[in-house]
Amino acid sequence: MKIVLASKSPRRKELLGLLDLEFQIITADIDETMDSALPVTDEVARISYQKAAAVASGLSDDAVIISADTIVELDGILMGKPKDKTDAARMLKSLSGRNHNVHTAVTVLTKEKSISKTVTTKVHFRKLTDKEISDYINTGEPMDKAGAYGIQGRASKFVSGIEGDYFNVVGLPVCTLSLMLKEFDIN
Amino acid sequence: MKIVLASKSPRRKELLGLLDLEFQIITADIDETMDSALPVTDEVARISYQKAAAVASGLSDDAVIISADTIVELDGILMGKPKDKTDAARMLKSLSGRNHNVHTAVTVLTKEKSISKTVTTKVHFRKLTDKEISDYINTGEPMDKAGAYGIQGRASKFVSGIEGDYFNVVGLPVCTLSLMLKEFDIN
Repeated sequence: MKIVLASKSPRRKELLGLLDLEFQIITADIDETMDSALPVTDEVARISYQKAAAVASGLSDDAVIISADTIVELDGILMGKPKDKTDAARMLKSLSGRNHNVHTAVTVLTKEKSISKTVTTKVHFRKLTDKEISDYINTGEPMDKAGAYGIQGRASKFVSGIEGDYFNVVGLPVCTLSLMLKEFDIN
Repeated sequence: MKIVLASKSPRRKELLGLLDLEFQIITADIDETMDSALPVTDEVARISYQKAAAVASGLSDDAVIISADTIVELDGILMGKPKDKTDAARMLKSLSGRNHNVHTAVTVLTKEKSISKTVTTKVHFRKLTDKEISDYINTGEPMDKAGAYGIQGRASKFVSGIEGDYFNVVGLPVCTLSLMLKEFDIN
């Protein structure tokens, strides 16, 4: 059996490492555009599934592929990775002093079956000053992250609390994934 | 101005590093015994304060000392670091499938004033099997941690969700501390 992580994210690599599994990373580019007319929890699961399916064809029959996709949602408005610094500032300004949801879908796919689950965590940001936002953007940290922040990095000081799985906000719901892997007899 | 972290914990060192401050580590041993007749949120603040006060006398007048103390509480029963493997197994078994509270007090102390705040986070553990508990203990990870687990390590898969500040469970409430430091004109 060969475990494959279909994600470029260094955070997901680190979190999967917490499960003490040996795995390799194989990724493929897919169209990550979501249909905003459909429920976000379904769309994030569809994108996660497609990331796994896109690498499956080149792999041996005993491969177990793990993939995930994360999106930030504020009052029904979706936030992926920011396009540029202006976009990052716009996102962080809208998150300031409010609650938002982080949806991460995780997929486990083998030749026989596939399971995708979406986990949602509520995140509360304290009020941010314009200077805090511009200082944070100048660190470069927001640019490759959904919603323009990394809770595990310098944005830790912006988050007064969460409700749900912290690791889901980082990009991989570790507890949910560990239970899904049991369904595939992986411990 | 010289910032001092009065803690031996490598996790607290890493979390304070997220605030982009330069600091050094100076610690002193104190009696960390809590009085179970007093409110735990007060006792953890008292221990945290004493950790800071114990190193203050040897430092220059411009020193800013940061310290913290963390305790796990399950239905009024307090859990510090486990004494041995048997004690760790007892703690993890009692946490399995239930909610508990993690209280961390953080102190900022200067020559002029001192502020201590206690932050509480509710943590939910999924049901653990005996094998999961013994496998986890055999990694050695539980032994230096309150409640016998590290949420940021291999126990991540045991935690289905939290309510409150994640970093408070790791050992330092980063958001609260960042606001306290503003009161000392440290940004």
